[in-house]
Amino acid sequence: MNYFDHAASTFLYPEVLDQLQSSLKEDFANPSAQHILGHDLTEKISFYREEFLKTLGAFKNDFFIFTSSATESNNTVIKGITFGERDSILYCRADHPSVTAPVESTGVLLKEILLNNDGVINVESFEALLDSSVKLVILSHVNNQNGVIQDIELLARIVKEKSGAHVHIDAVQSFGKIPFKLSPAIDSISVTSHKIGGPKGVAGLYLKNGHNVKPLLLGGGQEHGLRSSTESFPLIKAFHQAMKIAIKEFNFSSQKISGLSEVIKLQLLRSIPTIQMPFQVTSPYIVSFILPGISSDIILRHLEMRDVFISSTSACSSKQTGVNPTLSAMHISERFHKNFLRISLGPKTTEEEVKILLKEFVDVWGSVKHMQKR
Amino acid sequence: MNYFDHAASTFLYPEVLDQLQSSLKEDFANPSAQHILGHDLTEKISFYREEFLKTLGAFKNDFFIFTSSATESNNTVIKGITFGERDSILYCRADHPSVTAPVESTGVLLKEILLNNDGVINVESFEALLDSSVKLVILSHVNNQNGVIQDIELLARIVKEKSGAHVHIDAVQSFGKIPFKLSPAIDSISVTSHKIGGPKGVAGLYLKNGHNVKPLLLGGGQEHGLRSSTESFPLIKAFHQAMKIAIKEFNFSSQKISGLSEVIKLQLLRSIPTIQMPFQVTSPYIVSFILPGISSDIILRHLEMRDVFISSTSACSSKQTGVNPTLSAMHISERFHKNFLRISLGPKTTEEEVKILLKEFVDVWGSVKHMQKR
Repeated sequence: MNYFDHAASTFLYPEVLDQLQSSLKEDFANPSAQHILGHDLTEKISFYREEFLKTLGAFKNDFFIFTSSATESNNTVIKGITFGERDSILYCRADHPSVTAPVESTGVLLKEILLNNDGVINVESFEALLDSSVKLVILSHVNNQNGVIQDIELLARIVKEKSGAHVHIDAVQSFGKIPFKLSPAIDSISVTSHKIGGPKGVAGLYLKNGHNVKPLLLGGGQEHGLRSSTESFPLIKAFHQAMKIAIKEFNFSSQKISGLSEVIKLQLLRSIPTIQMPFQVTSPYIVSFILPGISSDIILRHLEMRDVFISSTSACSSKQTGVNPTLSAMHISERFHKNFLRISLGPKTTEEEVKILLKEFVDVWGSVKHMQKR
Repeated sequence: MNYFDHAASTFLYPEVLDQLQSSLKEDFANPSAQHILGHDLTEKISFYREEFLKTLGAFKNDFFIFTSSATESNNTVIKGITFGERDSILYCRADHPSVTAPVESTGVLLKEILLNNDGVINVESFEALLDSSVKLVILSHVNNQNGVIQDIELLARIVKEKSGAHVHIDAVQSFGKIPFKLSPAIDSISVTSHKIGGPKGVAGLYLKNGHNVKPLLLGGGQEHGLRSSTESFPLIKAFHQAMKIAIKEFNFSSQKISGLSEVIKLQLLRSIPTIQMPFQVTSPYIVSFILPGISSDIILRHLEMRDVFISSTSACSSKQTGVNPTLSAMHISERFHKNFLRISLGPKTTEEEVKILLKEFVDVWGSVKHMQKR
């Protein structure tokens, strides 16, 4: 199988899989239990928590809580802030639905962050949106569909210069993949396990000391009272292990994947004259492009018959039909919304796999290009 | 190890552990992905969903969604109902914190369901609380601390005769363990995996067709739009498998565990003259009692040194200190709150384990009874 949909979900590292198996068997107790079996697990969770805080470069007394998904992390922040009548939220319609959907349900005045044609936030118009009414600003470090990287350090600093707004970062596609420096201007960050070689069902939320996010899940008071639920110890342990591997192999993976994504881009540009690649400053793990007049669904079906798997839009947007607001926000003309494709790589993607991908892709394109609508 | 804290969390069935390992390895794709790898997983999830609905005896077009925890399931219902100014909620303070905490945070008028001295809901006073203002009634099928079973079919019917309130059942301690018949008077039910031999990190929420619960997690629109987040396929599959085993072995386990818990009760009553067992109509999986004047913590420590694990209060209440509102609601005098103990069994608990438990327990009691405060 040639799998190039790692941005949707990736394999577990073999080491993580092995350790998870033991943990699922042995670490069955409830970490909140009063006996030693519970205490031991709680202590380990505290250790993992500290490790995540260290990796993020957190400051003293900051929080890191384990949640069940990045969607939960994003919802926790968006629904956990108390908004007044005159408050507003800044967000971008190109963000993941787990940002846009809860934001749009708040009933709070929304101000849209606009992108340049290359997908990068327009700093001038961003600054112009900031005033004292802004209570929450949401920024995606790496866009999940086009891979565009935003300069979140700069943007967060600008927010704090102009307003006291809470700055939330969706770092799901960047954590463990793109260099990142935490600044005191950032108030919260969502990260997840299943995009970096850990299991689904566990994710994380960083919260700065002094944050004013109320918990979404109330109950037994786990995770510093910020996220009640029996702690999924084996999943938390596995997420920690995946993070450690991703960080350890960061430089090696980055260089390798940068090279491979360059090969993909160059080869596709060379082989497919009509291809459009509007996004330049992108994560090497995501290559997105438009094949004008060619249905992305048809490409997907042909590729999967050849055991090659890529994506047209994000898995979480797959239930949308017709006009895709995310692609509109990226300045992709409506007539190309059904022609958008995403190839996404994982840290273990090999040169051999890329060769097969390119061969099959160009082959498929050759066999469908006559269907091209003008 | 002699583990008697199954009500807090239990072992994975070995079959579930094996299958989960394969699934974690093989079923890595995102079920919402547009390619065949995603479609296959989505179809399987639909099948598992139907199986849960069938097991619950659901009606046509009812919903079953997979969540991350019973806490999330309970919070989803409590926070998902829109309350008007004059509405009220009926709940019991002896319920699990994942019920009491979100209920108490709603700001809605709360009416407390009262228990008789034996822990059973007082039907007369329950009826008296019901009027047209009641919008939500929460009932725990089996109390997690004392194991008392409520007649939820009767109570739900009474609710529907007197009001149009939504009836929510917390069935976490009963699902797969206590006979249960779904009636049209019941609107929602929380169940969880890690109490019945499945992994932590996955749980379920039944919702009747026509329910008016708004989703707690917004995003990609997974789970019929009722619970956004990448579906944790391997965990969902494992939960389904654990449920199937629990249901298949239901009669055998029930009879065996009923016998074992009777042995535990009789032996403890016989060996410890001061013991109090105020609760009679209980799940055989939970045996709770009071040892007047003896600190439950001391018993716990002594037992764990002998590799025997029981519980004093629920794991999710372990962060509470001093007076325990749950125990107060059960009419346990404050002076006994630190003397309350819970022994909880799992379907695989053996006679041999029970013999060791009883020997060690009576031994420990013998060695600490002189510390008894009068």
